[in-house]
Amino acid sequence: MTTSADDSESAPRPRRGRRPSGEDTRATVVAAARSEFASRGYETATMRSIARAAGVDARLVHHYFDSKEDLFVAAMELPIHPNDLIEKVLDGPRDRIGERLVRFFLGVWDSPEGRPVILALVRSAVSHDDAAQMLQQFVTGAILGRIASAVDTPDPQMRAALVASQMTGLVFVRHVLKIEPVASASLDELVPLLAPTVQRYLTAP
Amino acid sequence: MTTSADDSESAPRPRRGRRPSGEDTRATVVAAARSEFASRGYETATMRSIARAAGVDARLVHHYFDSKEDLFVAAMELPIHPNDLIEKVLDGPRDRIGERLVRFFLGVWDSPEGRPVILALVRSAVSHDDAAQMLQQFVTGAILGRIASAVDTPDPQMRAALVASQMTGLVFVRHVLKIEPVASASLDELVPLLAPTVQRYLTAP
Repeated sequence: MTTSADDSESAPRPRRGRRPSGEDTRATVVAAARSEFASRGYETATMRSIARAAGVDARLVHHYFDSKEDLFVAAMELPIHPNDLIEKVLDGPRDRIGERLVRFFLGVWDSPEGRPVILALVRSAVSHDDAAQMLQQFVTGAILGRIASAVDTPDPQMRAALVASQMTGLVFVRHVLKIEPVASASLDELVPLLAPTVQRYLTAP
Repeated sequence: MTTSADDSESAPRPRRGRRPSGEDTRATVVAAARSEFASRGYETATMRSIARAAGVDARLVHHYFDSKEDLFVAAMELPIHPNDLIEKVLDGPRDRIGERLVRFFLGVWDSPEGRPVILALVRSAVSHDDAAQMLQQFVTGAILGRIASAVDTPDPQMRAALVASQMTGLVFVRHVLKIEPVASASLDELVPLLAPTVQRYLTAP
């Protein structure tokens, strides 16, 4: 350790992490993704259309991001990747999926990183039709639709939309309207009250 | 009929409805109410403070409006009076209160008069804390809280807030995010899906 420290003092110190030019390219791609998602919607935007908008080769976009979803997470500065959320919700007994969904979603939104993001998304959805469409496609397609499909009951789209209605309303009442006692209730108080609703939407015949 | 029509032709035609000066006063009161509700919140604003803001005698406010609620209905141009909504929801068997609540609320929001109002309220709540507080106090105090209290189960405030979470989320998914199939579903399709949720929030032990 001491030797290598001495070495680095005599030789030029190697760069650590990404090179500035790489950072710049990544930031350009993320900015292009943000505007592509907003103008085309989540479904229609592609890795290719984002590369074109950023003025870079599609392979370069793939160098930084494995999937369109990863790009969305970076563009929207989401505090958690949908894959992690979905994995946590699906991992466990089927008759407690409602409980896990409410707990993990609410946990993310309640976190200091999650709250400003979800509020910004809600605000932009309410004031811009484009943003509403983008959020709608992401929430139902990339998150709730996948959960509902994995549960393997009829009408996964209707189930996903009903879950969305309860969960977005919960954000609205807890963080926007701040209606008591929901606004100040703990996660442990809210989960048993809301879990049966989500459970029914996902698994009831 | 013919005689009186003849009479009115020979004599000056009497004014019909409110006199213009009355209309002006009423409009001044309504405008003052709107700004009082926004700045003080629904709970803190009073008939008296609204009269003061309008620069008129409190008795004049009472001449046009029976209650603060009536003033709120006029100020927000609500398509239905909360009293009518509450009466309809409470009138019938207790085990179908969820069904009636979903049907009547959704019916109002889906109507051509209701939709722009509810969207305007949601938009202003999302972008202004004052508006959010005003809406919160009105929705829970003047509507859902009264319904929950009438049902006479423990924790009426928590029940009202949970109903608010499902119903505001439904507005959000149906009219703002427009998530299918909820966005295009008929009232008759949605009511049986959502009614058990509201029923449980209001009457479950």
